[in-house]
Amino acid sequence: MAEIAVMGYGTVGSGVVEVLTKHADHIAQRAKEQINIKYILDRKAFPNSPFADKFTTSFDKIVSDPEIQIVVEVLGGLHPAFDYVKKCLESGKSVVTSNKELVAAKGAELLKIAQERNLNFLFEASVGGGIPIIRPMSQCLAANEVIGIAGILNGTTNFILTKMIREKMNFQEALSLAQKLGYAERDPSDDIGGLDACRKICILASLAYGKHVYPEQVHTEGITKITLADVEYASSWGGVIKLIGFTEKLENGHLKIMVCPMFLSRESQLANVDDVFNGIMVRGDSTGDVVFYGKGAGKFPTASAVVADVIDCVKHFKARKYLFWGEGSPEYVENFGEYKSAKYVHIKTSDTVATEKCIAEEFSGTERLARRNEEPGEIGFVTPVLKEKVFRKRLECISSSGARILNTIRIGDF
Amino acid sequence: MAEIAVMGYGTVGSGVVEVLTKHADHIAQRAKEQINIKYILDRKAFPNSPFADKFTTSFDKIVSDPEIQIVVEVLGGLHPAFDYVKKCLESGKSVVTSNKELVAAKGAELLKIAQERNLNFLFEASVGGGIPIIRPMSQCLAANEVIGIAGILNGTTNFILTKMIREKMNFQEALSLAQKLGYAERDPSDDIGGLDACRKICILASLAYGKHVYPEQVHTEGITKITLADVEYASSWGGVIKLIGFTEKLENGHLKIMVCPMFLSRESQLANVDDVFNGIMVRGDSTGDVVFYGKGAGKFPTASAVVADVIDCVKHFKARKYLFWGEGSPEYVENFGEYKSAKYVHIKTSDTVATEKCIAEEFSGTERLARRNEEPGEIGFVTPVLKEKVFRKRLECISSSGARILNTIRIGDF
Repeated sequence: MAEIAVMGYGTVGSGVVEVLTKHADHIAQRAKEQINIKYILDRKAFPNSPFADKFTTSFDKIVSDPEIQIVVEVLGGLHPAFDYVKKCLESGKSVVTSNKELVAAKGAELLKIAQERNLNFLFEASVGGGIPIIRPMSQCLAANEVIGIAGILNGTTNFILTKMIREKMNFQEALSLAQKLGYAERDPSDDIGGLDACRKICILASLAYGKHVYPEQVHTEGITKITLADVEYASSWGGVIKLIGFTEKLENGHLKIMVCPMFLSRESQLANVDDVFNGIMVRGDSTGDVVFYGKGAGKFPTASAVVADVIDCVKHFKARKYLFWGEGSPEYVENFGEYKSAKYVHIKTSDTVATEKCIAEEFSGTERLARRNEEPGEIGFVTPVLKEKVFRKRLECISSSGARILNTIRIGDF
Repeated sequence: MAEIAVMGYGTVGSGVVEVLTKHADHIAQRAKEQINIKYILDRKAFPNSPFADKFTTSFDKIVSDPEIQIVVEVLGGLHPAFDYVKKCLESGKSVVTSNKELVAAKGAELLKIAQERNLNFLFEASVGGGIPIIRPMSQCLAANEVIGIAGILNGTTNFILTKMIREKMNFQEALSLAQKLGYAERDPSDDIGGLDACRKICILASLAYGKHVYPEQVHTEGITKITLADVEYASSWGGVIKLIGFTEKLENGHLKIMVCPMFLSRESQLANVDDVFNGIMVRGDSTGDVVFYGKGAGKFPTASAVVADVIDCVKHFKARKYLFWGEGSPEYVENFGEYKSAKYVHIKTSDTVATEKCIAEEFSGTERLARRNEEPGEIGFVTPVLKEKVFRKRLECISSSGARILNTIRIGDF
């Protein structure tokens, strides 16, 4: 019998308890041992729950109970989750979490404690919800060098963009619908600002390249500035707009990593990942492109990923899973100004002659786009591949030609 | 140091040796031990190979060497592969194979021997080449009941169908091109007849539901009868034709399992899996639909999957992976006549009045399709959902009305 505690009884936590109970026999067969939930930590009491006798408000009770071998952390947020998880590991308990904020901020530190004490610290559910990605990346791709990773990592923004593309809703309408359907929080800023996707690409990059990347090192843009005009220009270019997190190891050993909306060609395997679904492409030197697709969030997808980690912990009490990365460093992430990509530019000018002259001089080789109902002075074009710093510099000419820069969006090549 | 032997030095075998050599340090770090290839079994000698001193033509040398802990079987085919693998397991060696024919025919028997001796018998590369699918299914989805699986499991046929759909090649032209490009063998019958896909869905079904399904139990149709007219009718219906292997557990405990070409809606996540790529959808009760996508074959994708299994074997000398299914039984697979689906029917009649009367009477509720350049007497339609046995019976009326049945293709609902 393996004794476990579940910290947090919100959406994911209650899902974990339900899956562990509903599939108890099947799970025991896989884990080769029965799993018993001894405690559920929550500030609230649930007197009518069938698990009422398991609830506690005392973390100390859990951490000091030598019977507890595995602790599931599904509180979310950094505090008190970090403190709790650290103490659990220091007390010799393996930890399973779905908390991407925690892993993205403190992964290296917690993995080190786990390694020193020969414990497991597992977090399959922190990226891609129910899509298996952490485990396939660390195991199945063990015989590969990861060339790069690109993914649609946030379901809320993907839902909003899908509604804008398919149903011509504007951003606000699509966001309101997402909130109404429960896909977006009342404060949606972490999703629409790109921070949620940023945490996830940090976790994937840390895992793939063995060194921690912290969210604050990553240039992150959200989708709040995307308009229907951008969607139309993307369509005329032959693609769609998606919020992409990507990373790539450069030859100089530095990391290219960013979260931003991108034009993706309709041929891209990520272009058809719609609605609340996530899709993650891992490019390996041996496997080529492998794509993982599924629901990136939700009670049961996430809970089943947590439970799979719990099963793994039970099976590996003495054989720690290979899942590790070291501390990061400030110079590890390449200077953003050096990143290269082609860019879509959307402007409105009051002086067409001057602006056209500037485009011809500063952006030779651009592809002009068109959309229906283009307004007078409105111009959409795609530049050749340019470094960020060169691009920013050349844009100045457009601004001084009397044009307003309405938006710029990078072109993805995956 | 883990000593291994590689049996077979064809495409996959030479890839395995190359990956193990090229990524030796990275792999040793993951496996926590150096891996040394002690023998390579092949009938041919490779005197100029850097591995020349490792080659042997003697299986007995391998099986009787107590230092060898893991044997990689990439010979392909049932004989002598089965005999060799069985003897290796009986001699206490774990086995990794990419041989789908072997696993589909003898999986239960070999898994039993492995279980009895606490050894690993792993075969990630047998399905989906470099796409991680066996491991995610057995581990990540451990907390799920698998509702069903549907997949594009054969790259050769998917390439041919893609050429027919996108470039209007006919079947023979597309097959010749596939052969020219090395995607199809000189004798392509296992691919185009559906047997290769059948072996793979047998492996997935056996794993998902814990009981062996043998290829000869599975109704299997290939793609040789598909014409450009069918492709056009599928397009007018709103979809594409794909060769699909699928399985589903029925409420009576029996298995629905089949390989056949299907109409898939353009909205299906499998509809955009093109060229030589494979896509496998696993529908779990908790995760919902999860799709794995990537190159289903090829030297390095397959080799890297084999090497990942080798690493797992090294890490788990004493902790056997949970990967098991029991023997099958004749009544386990549901009678094919009971399977339900809607069907596309393509006919040519010399007596339009009689045939139309029959369609109206026997197939009420059909959807009529149209294509450009439809010939006189040519009719394409989609029936409502019908049992196979009912459908076959009703078709008789069409035949006796003076119509030739050119093709019938099932409609997929995933």
